Amino acid sequence: MDKKEENTEEQVVNPWEVSSSGGKIDYDKLIDKFGCQRFDQSLVDRVQRLTGRPPHVFLRRGVFFAHRDFNEILDAYERGEKFYLYTGRGPSSEALHLGHLIPFMFTKYLQDAFKVPLVIQLTDDEKCMWKNLSVEESQRLARENAKDIIACGFDITKTFIFSDFDYVGGAFYKNMVRVAKCVTYNKVVGIFGFTGEDHIGKVSFPPVQAVPSFPSSFPHLFSGKDNLRCLIPCAIDQDPYFRMTRDVAPRIGYHKPALIESSFFPALQGENGKMSASDPNSAIYVTDSGKVIKNKINKYAFSGGRESVELHRKLGANVEEYGAGRMLTGEVKQRLTQVLTELVERHQTARSAVTDEMVDAFMSVRPLPNMFN
Amino acid sequence: MDKKEENTEEQVVNPWEVSSSGGKIDYDKLIDKFGCQRFDQSLVDRVQRLTGRPPHVFLRRGVFFAHRDFNEILDAYERGEKFYLYTGRGPSSEALHLGHLIPFMFTKYLQDAFKVPLVIQLTDDEKCMWKNLSVEESQRLARENAKDIIACGFDITKTFIFSDFDYVGGAFYKNMVRVAKCVTYNKVVGIFGFTGEDHIGKVSFPPVQAVPSFPSSFPHLFSGKDNLRCLIPCAIDQDPYFRMTRDVAPRIGYHKPALIESSFFPALQGENGKMSASDPNSAIYVTDSGKVIKNKINKYAFSGGRESVELHRKLGANVEEYGAGRMLTGEVKQRLTQVLTELVERHQTARSAVTDEMVDAFMSVRPLPNMFN
Repeated sequence: MDKKEENTEEQVVNPWEVSSSGGKIDYDKLIDKFGCQRFDQSLVDRVQRLTGRPPHVFLRRGVFFAHRDFNEILDAYERGEKFYLYTGRGPSSEALHLGHLIPFMFTKYLQDAFKVPLVIQLTDDEKCMWKNLSVEESQRLARENAKDIIACGFDITKTFIFSDFDYVGGAFYKNMVRVAKCVTYNKVVGIFGFTGEDHIGKVSFPPVQAVPSFPSSFPHLFSGKDNLRCLIPCAIDQDPYFRMTRDVAPRIGYHKPALIESSFFPALQGENGKMSASDPNSAIYVTDSGKVIKNKINKYAFSGGRESVELHRKLGANVEEYGAGRMLTGEVKQRLTQVLTELVERHQTARSAVTDEMVDAFMSVRPLPNMFN
Repeated sequence: MDKKEENTEEQVVNPWEVSSSGGKIDYDKLIDKFGCQRFDQSLVDRVQRLTGRPPHVFLRRGVFFAHRDFNEILDAYERGEKFYLYTGRGPSSEALHLGHLIPFMFTKYLQDAFKVPLVIQLTDDEKCMWKNLSVEESQRLARENAKDIIACGFDITKTFIFSDFDYVGGAFYKNMVRVAKCVTYNKVVGIFGFTGEDHIGKVSFPPVQAVPSFPSSFPHLFSGKDNLRCLIPCAIDQDPYFRMTRDVAPRIGYHKPALIESSFFPALQGENGKMSASDPNSAIYVTDSGKVIKNKINKYAFSGGRESVELHRKLGANVEEYGAGRMLTGEVKQRLTQVLTELVERHQTARSAVTDEMVDAFMSVRPLPNMFN
């Protein structure tokens, strides 16, 4: 990374920190800096044509705004080749907030549209090491989070959810070693910014998040399919892991995983950061009641409204009806409260139907015989 | 480590290098530098008293010359508490040499004398990473080496042999993470001398060798016995791993493992190094024929004999009959050839009787119900 460029940019985006001292995140700069590609309208159109479905709202609205080699996934798909999806979550909190749901809602759409299998990694080992949680507490949070993930509606005949503490070993561990051999300490310092005072668990972790990109890490699913391509939907802060993974992949005989990457769900207070579990007022949780949602939005949400009704009517803000000045802050907040309350209540109903037996079923190491149908 | 002290010592002893520019290894200095304890005659006597057996020749001759907390193991044993043994091997070569057999011959004696269970770790992952072997080749070497180990006569009702590629995962992996959280990168640099150009597999490995010291890494053997003590017989070059392990153990709720440590089996050329698989003329292999053994000893073995028969008779050398001048170099070499040929032929006979089924049996993850009897 160019030091000078970093200084003038003043925005930090990595798996553990998202901030921008100069205001909101500049996603164009991020695309340049990370070296990924913009997800443009022609790709949105191509997805619609190939799947025969309207593109997901997160594509239409540019929430998933960047990619790496997604066009190659579509080329292969057009030739009749299949692929698999890989996404994940670091289980650091009891309840998910709406920012956490974004990749899962979008991944469900991809699974349904392309009819492909999906592996979901719960990095309980990572959170145990970074957040200094006990092994047992990390595992408990992983299971709780699995319920929220299952509530997003994934197809159990096409979906394998695993926690690292349960699943690391065997073919997965062998791939971890193969990856680790290809990455120097200096390299991970460059990518992740580790220091000598960081514990070696942190240095050991990147291969754990890398190897679900390789089909041979899942012999119960993809045995004999070492050429299967992998597509990873994720927030762009996870890009450093997969830059590393893509660098290593061809050296150990695998395709580079493709990526489709989202911007951050903004904090209620505005676009200078992302919804963060460590600041409860920045986020709407999937466990919040309608009343809590309404209060948070009315109290904390930044809307861009003008100082007075007159000024607002005259100048407008920058979002459609609101931008044209035909809606007031209060009206926007009311509409937002309604949309989010419906989404959250739908999620709560779905989650309450998820039993421990369903979690066991999604997380059991088993073949998925109809996963490509 | 004190830089100045290191420079005057000019001897390097770590898991990957044993050398001494000033001549033979100074084991007294090593004890001081590592901070371990000398294995003195009173301990030898105590072992004899507690086990009711004559002490092993490697104890009488001081081959196992150092220890850490071995007296605590004996205290506990005297109170009626049991312990378990842990040793291992990095499978980097097809055939073992005599230096490799030392810890196994001694461990068998300990198992028989104390009637305790034993876990043997084959670090195929380590050798895959350090020697740049493929995963498959490392695993093949591990199985080949397991046959030589089994040929040492271990009791299958008390012995679990495992390879890391097979066994890492579950409770073992959880302990790896617990250890990794307690060790900074700076710390492993201080202990092992890693550099920024080393790959992260090396940095990740020390916890893998650490955690067999903790009974909870083997739930099929020691479930509910988290307080069981561990005794590690090994060559002293492995001490750095276990210094680290002993530092971490109390912080994660376990006893520190005790150690009993051997000097190196000297190279045929003399005591300035150890028998090394990377210099075939330095070592007698367990696969060598009687003729090869005789040739190697006659051609390469350093004996300390004098320049002429007259001088030798007059001055003598420094080993009993030979030292007193009553034996000649040729006679010593003949006796050595005879002793080693017998040992190697006995080993070859035992190894040829080890079937693949026996390897599978020793390496299967199973309870050992009579392991303490």
